[in-house]
Amino acid sequence: MTTIGFIGLGVMGAPMAANLVRAGHDVVGYNRSPGKVAALVESGGRGADTVADAVRGADVVITMLPDSPDVEEVVLGEDGVLAHASEGTIHVDASTIRPDVARAVADAARARGVRPLDAPVSGGEAGAVDGVLSIMVGGDAADLEEVRPVLEAVGRTIVHVGPSGAGQTVKAANQLIVAGNLQLVAEALVFLDAHGVDLEPAVEVLGGGLAGSTVLERKAAGMLSRSFAPGFRVDLHHKDLGIVLDAARAAGVAVPVGSQVADLVASLRAQGGGGLDHSALLLQVERLSGRDTELGREA
Amino acid sequence: MTTIGFIGLGVMGAPMAANLVRAGHDVVGYNRSPGKVAALVESGGRGADTVADAVRGADVVITMLPDSPDVEEVVLGEDGVLAHASEGTIHVDASTIRPDVARAVADAARARGVRPLDAPVSGGEAGAVDGVLSIMVGGDAADLEEVRPVLEAVGRTIVHVGPSGAGQTVKAANQLIVAGNLQLVAEALVFLDAHGVDLEPAVEVLGGGLAGSTVLERKAAGMLSRSFAPGFRVDLHHKDLGIVLDAARAAGVAVPVGSQVADLVASLRAQGGGGLDHSALLLQVERLSGRDTELGREA
Amino acid sequence: MTTIGFIGLGVMGAPMAANLVRAGHDVVGYNRSPGKVAALVESGGRGADTVADAVRGADVVITMLPDSPDVEEVVLGEDGVLAHASEGTIHVDASTIRPDVARAVADAARARGVRPLDAPVSGGEAGAVDGVLSIMVGGDAADLEEVRPVLEAVGRTIVHVGPSGAGQTVKAANQLIVAGNLQLVAEALVFLDAHGVDLEPAVEVLGGGLAGSTVLERKAAGMLSRSFAPGFRVDLHHKDLGIVLDAARAAGVAVPVGSQVADLVASLRAQGGGGLDHSALLLQVERLSGRDTELGREA
Amino acid sequence: MTTIGFIGLGVMGAPMAANLVRAGHDVVGYNRSPGKVAALVESGGRGADTVADAVRGADVVITMLPDSPDVEEVVLGEDGVLAHASEGTIHVDASTIRPDVARAVADAARARGVRPLDAPVSGGEAGAVDGVLSIMVGGDAADLEEVRPVLEAVGRTIVHVGPSGAGQTVKAANQLIVAGNLQLVAEALVFLDAHGVDLEPAVEVLGGGLAGSTVLERKAAGMLSRSFAPGFRVDLHHKDLGIVLDAARAAGVAVPVGSQVADLVASLRAQGGGGLDHSALLLQVERLSGRDTELGREA
Repeated sequence: MTTIGFIGLGVMGAPMAANLVRAGHDVVGYNRSPGKVAALVESGGRGADTVADAVRGADVVITMLPDSPDVEEVVLGEDGVLAHASEGTIHVDASTIRPDVARAVADAARARGVRPLDAPVSGGEAGAVDGVLSIMVGGDAADLEEVRPVLEAVGRTIVHVGPSGAGQTVKAANQLIVAGNLQLVAEALVFLDAHGVDLEPAVEVLGGGLAGSTVLERKAAGMLSRSFAPGFRVDLHHKDLGIVLDAARAAGVAVPVGSQVADLVASLRAQGGGGLDHSALLLQVERLSGRDTELGREA
Repeated sequence: MTTIGFIGLGVMGAPMAANLVRAGHDVVGYNRSPGKVAALVESGGRGADTVADAVRGADVVITMLPDSPDVEEVVLGEDGVLAHASEGTIHVDASTIRPDVARAVADAARARGVRPLDAPVSGGEAGAVDGVLSIMVGGDAADLEEVRPVLEAVGRTIVHVGPSGAGQTVKAANQLIVAGNLQLVAEALVFLDAHGVDLEPAVEVLGGGLAGSTVLERKAAGMLSRSFAPGFRVDLHHKDLGIVLDAARAAGVAVPVGSQVADLVASLRAQGGGGLDHSALLLQVERLSGRDTELGREA
Repeated sequence: MTTIGFIGLGVMGAPMAANLVRAGHDVVGYNRSPGKVAALVESGGRGADTVADAVRGADVVITMLPDSPDVEEVVLGEDGVLAHASEGTIHVDASTIRPDVARAVADAARARGVRPLDAPVSGGEAGAVDGVLSIMVGGDAADLEEVRPVLEAVGRTIVHVGPSGAGQTVKAANQLIVAGNLQLVAEALVFLDAHGVDLEPAVEVLGGGLAGSTVLERKAAGMLSRSFAPGFRVDLHHKDLGIVLDAARAAGVAVPVGSQVADLVASLRAQGGGGLDHSALLLQVERLSGRDTELGREA
Repeated sequence: MTTIGFIGLGVMGAPMAANLVRAGHDVVGYNRSPGKVAALVESGGRGADTVADAVRGADVVITMLPDSPDVEEVVLGEDGVLAHASEGTIHVDASTIRPDVARAVADAARARGVRPLDAPVSGGEAGAVDGVLSIMVGGDAADLEEVRPVLEAVGRTIVHVGPSGAGQTVKAANQLIVAGNLQLVAEALVFLDAHGVDLEPAVEVLGGGLAGSTVLERKAAGMLSRSFAPGFRVDLHHKDLGIVLDAARAAGVAVPVGSQVADLVASLRAQGGGGLDHSALLLQVERLSGRDTELGREA
């Protein structure tokens, strides 16, 4: 049994913490809005009123926060994780943030004797609930091996991809591919619908060939039933694609499709879709194709 | 046992015919260049010197040809399939051609008492060899059910998607998604490599999350080992994307990413990559990112 | 004075024919819908009831028609221009059509002893009314010199660009640049408006620098006043961009921005904008940017 | 006669300062590398060894610097412009920088009693030498009117476009349009060349119609003669397009073509073209079209 301080009990964090409790760990949870903490306590965890309370005495601290500034504040802040973590603690940041910020946070941790891992996840809310997330880990490989038994309670594919920041870089690539696949499936579905093809069997057969993808498997049905409740919000994917574009520019890498998809996601958000699931790119393609009835009726 | 006339014994057709023989069918093969026929005969099939010989007496005729004009010539031509097929024969066209041509060919078949199915496949050479192709079928659903036992020798996912032409429309959507996924994976790999991430573990972890796809599973390894022998040639994918763009224009469907990917594939071909596997889109992204050493060294 | 058969008295053709009359030529006009002919007669021209009547006895025949099939029918058709033109006649086709069709029409003309020039124009309705069109001419340079005095009544920049078809190829390039400039100005205006910049002075100062263009000069004001009555219809520009994409594919030329702009124009058309002036690309950008109020209010 | 402190005597700044001297003003120039100062002194200006010397006693201070950090350092820095400018001085920043930085610099100036104008220019080195720049001015309109006689020595089109920062926003829009036009002209030229059209007459006739632009007028000849010595460097245009994308994201404005052109410019730079004139986008299109001979031979 490991004592785990878990900070950030949102859509992803809450089910992850619950899975850690279920695996027999001693989980001390903290969340800015306390309602979430109550739910964790009900499921058998302990609640903390401050970051400090969650961190003190923990062997492992896991943070799952929305964006780079949140991580900087909660980890580096005056009364933050590093101010209260005891030497040797492993800090797993599961948030999706800028790789350069991840590196800065890791440097600060090491300066305090804390062992940092950037470990963003992929798989969405469903993956978090089922404990089958894909976890891309940057940092010291030995630290990952030490904490792997803990992470196995929340993830199925847990891979060390490089030094600190590498996990976030892989997550950025992940978000590039996911947004692109969603757009491609959206273009394909509108294309097929416009040609009078039966969509359910089309999705089935597409999934069986080289066009198959996890996006097609998990997201096409929701597109067809026009269920765009998140899931993963367009606002967050928009944020992630900003990370991708900045990192690509910094490295001098051409991302022609990535640039275009980022613009399409930004456009969907500008049209008021920020709170929808990212699969709502379908609505964007329908709109661009003059099929607004559907958009009007359903969105 | 069904007697099957099989016309077109190329990269895809040859292994499909061999699997039909293996399944116990009487396969009479024809190919413009006779060398391919010899191979079929060795594997237990029969050879034909003309289309007429392959078609006469067949219960099912399968054509697997490169492009629309080939199908028009072989099926509609003076000495072609329809000129020699007996009434009630089922003609399965497994080629990837224009949906409008598929509809015209189907109309001509019906006028001759032949039952047409457009049944393009996805899964590549590997899928053909293993007999696990995905087959998207347009035409009369009852005709598909009658011929399904035959098709099960070459495919695993065999789905009726609509009337004549619908199979080709779904195949067009398939090629749109596949080209887009290849480009996205290429952009992601160059992005990761430029940031010094370990690519093999990165591909593994990406595959475990929402970014997972059959393209990542089957094509990323070849990209990393820089093996671009086809497989599926850029020239053919370029042809298919022309079908996608024309059909999208005809239907008034916006395909922003599809349009861009079609231009990137056309560009790869213009740079001399037409004979490489379509996963060579990696070379294009490397070139656009100023990483020509690799391109020079390997292509 | 030259006797000119003028076929096609539409938005562009009517003012061109009127300018030829004004220049002292004997203009015999034909149009499918006879109303247009009456207007020409009023302005001092002569009317013809058939293509044959317009062509017989003419030294020069000018055709100004919507699309490739129209030119094929009117010029090559049974009772068309070539059937009635006397040997040595110069046929100036001012329509915007496919370069390959232009070459085929030219070959047919030469076979009949008629001297063909493909001479599409740029400058829009205003340019036609003012007689200041830009005319890009393919064919025999000597034939152009002979007919130049006639063309000078309708155009200001009249240039020989190559053999038959070259005029149409240059017109295709013209339409690529124009559509792209319209889109760029639209993106710039929405960008500036969203940042609270005064648009009129912004357009003035942009026009004075390297961003200056004829599109900015002639089209920005209409965008700002939201007047999208054609002018040049989106439907026609969509047709022309199809020519550009086909010709680019045929030549193996990458047109990344051209491909994207063609998709944006197709999308504007799919959304019901086909009858608007092509400067309505502004509405598209506004829509993509979530600024639908304007679109709703004005379009 | 006005006493003008001029800071930044580079490709643009040097000819601007020389024109101010020619107009009879007392110009005190400073540049990090002193060689540039000598040239100004020769042409009749005065030299300064420090920013302070250039600013002290000046009625107007003009800064012409490469990027936002340079302006922050030179203007806000300990020994910078604001530290030494006397109350009431007008500070004209002609650099192209981020609009938000321009606003911050303006606020700091006002706090010191200095009157700020952001006044980026367009027209390139030629426009600077000829004193016909286009100047887009943000800030207090009355301040512009007061300094206009000075600016008329360097610019022809001098327009007030809004409050502080607005000048930079318009410049960003300018750079978006310019990059797009360069790409469009490059696509058109490669398209025409691939079809065997005579390029010089084609450029002439394109310039006479709706496709005409200052880019075509000033840059096409250099493209045809393959002279890519800057002029305006790709590195700088890349920097400016980063400003455009960030500002567009911040405002929720879709810039589909802008995003793609920014990626193409980044790609040209990644391929080693950063030091070439931005018209070298032609080489990019040639490369994408497999026309590397030209690229190899000339670049």
